[in-house]
Amino acid sequence: MQPMHTVSAYDDELKYLARRIASMGGHAERMVEQAITALVSADTRLAQKVVRDDPILDESQRDIDEKAVSVIARRQPMARDLREVIGAIRISADLERIGDLAKNVAKRVVAATEGQQPVSLFRGIEALADLALSQLKEVLDVYASREVTKLGFIRDHDDDIDAMYTSLFRELLTYMMEDPRNITPCTHLLFCAKNVERIGDHATNIAETIYHIVTGEQMANERPKGDKTDRVTASLLLPK
Amino acid sequence: MQPMHTVSAYDDELKYLARRIASMGGHAERMVEQAITALVSADTRLAQKVVRDDPILDESQRDIDEKAVSVIARRQPMARDLREVIGAIRISADLERIGDLAKNVAKRVVAATEGQQPVSLFRGIEALADLALSQLKEVLDVYASREVTKLGFIRDHDDDIDAMYTSLFRELLTYMMEDPRNITPCTHLLFCAKNVERIGDHATNIAETIYHIVTGEQMANERPKGDKTDRVTASLLLPK
Repeated sequence: MQPMHTVSAYDDELKYLARRIASMGGHAERMVEQAITALVSADTRLAQKVVRDDPILDESQRDIDEKAVSVIARRQPMARDLREVIGAIRISADLERIGDLAKNVAKRVVAATEGQQPVSLFRGIEALADLALSQLKEVLDVYASREVTKLGFIRDHDDDIDAMYTSLFRELLTYMMEDPRNITPCTHLLFCAKNVERIGDHATNIAETIYHIVTGEQMANERPKGDKTDRVTASLLLPK
Repeated sequence: MQPMHTVSAYDDELKYLARRIASMGGHAERMVEQAITALVSADTRLAQKVVRDDPILDESQRDIDEKAVSVIARRQPMARDLREVIGAIRISADLERIGDLAKNVAKRVVAATEGQQPVSLFRGIEALADLALSQLKEVLDVYASREVTKLGFIRDHDDDIDAMYTSLFRELLTYMMEDPRNITPCTHLLFCAKNVERIGDHATNIAETIYHIVTGEQMANERPKGDKTDRVTASLLLPK
């Protein structure tokens, strides 16, 4: 049997990883919130702040990766502990990507807010972001509580996000057809909407990882992630 | 000392992972090639084949993940072997994403080829895909040969892909402004071009992972991945 202080140091290492993930999660959430606020209010200063904040997540991911690999090498974790450590590597990769997507929204603020876009378009992206953010928050809460029975909401939210993204996609295309001056800003808004939709996908990935950490099983009915806008054709939008 | 047959079985397990990655890589390459061919030649049958082929990569990724975690748990690999196993998890995730991106291009074939798009737009996407594909092929060759000194090409190719993507982005916007009937198909082409650009990013990720497996170091001068089109504003495109 290992001496007590070693077991406890090991435990501390696992807790350190979980704490770092929780703090990355909070940081990613904030970046998404601020990127959307910057976009909706055409606030280029806030957008620049989001871009500047991104390296913190990159750094955290590198730190978590190194720590996780070092825990595996030194402690040879088994079963649940091993899933915990591998899960930390996966979740930190998803959180880092969420930060990248928020940064990309922030970088488009200038180009997307040029001209007079109708308020409804920004409201649409804001509503989409609210859904994606509440998905992310609930997933991070489950990471803290480990109550995986609460992960049932994920499917419904995914469907809501897909439906709202598809409707926003159509709305943006229609608006571009009305006036060529809308084309460039609306294209940037399309990419912003797509980024928000992908943030939802990464939140779902995290939910699946947490489920696997806690139960050792794959989450039932994993559904294909990704948007449904590939079926939106001109003939659906243009007047006959 | 462990009996010889155990060491050899362990070695076989590492080789199995490397073989699976190589075969995933070949499959991902083929999916990208066929998705682009389907797009350029408006071949919906080939597009459907690409969509049908995607689950093979999902399945391979799951298999590699399970095998890798089981190797870690049973063999407690150290140093280079541990990097090899963790690297297999990372590379298979990148290859699975490349397959998803190819599938997404394939799913847009119908919507993107509606109407009469100028040949030059498709040539542009084809040229972008050629760059991304040669990037992917060279990276997979280095995975097989382990000659990481050959990874220097990565930076230059990244710059070429970024420049070509930005020019295609502008060209598509200009074309949308000329005729509202171009807007929907060109929007789908924009997303296709973006997907191809991201395939290049994933190839770069794989290069970084290979470098880390072989050397234990991070690749020097890691550069931010991602597109530069956020700076393309309407005022750059519209006549004064």
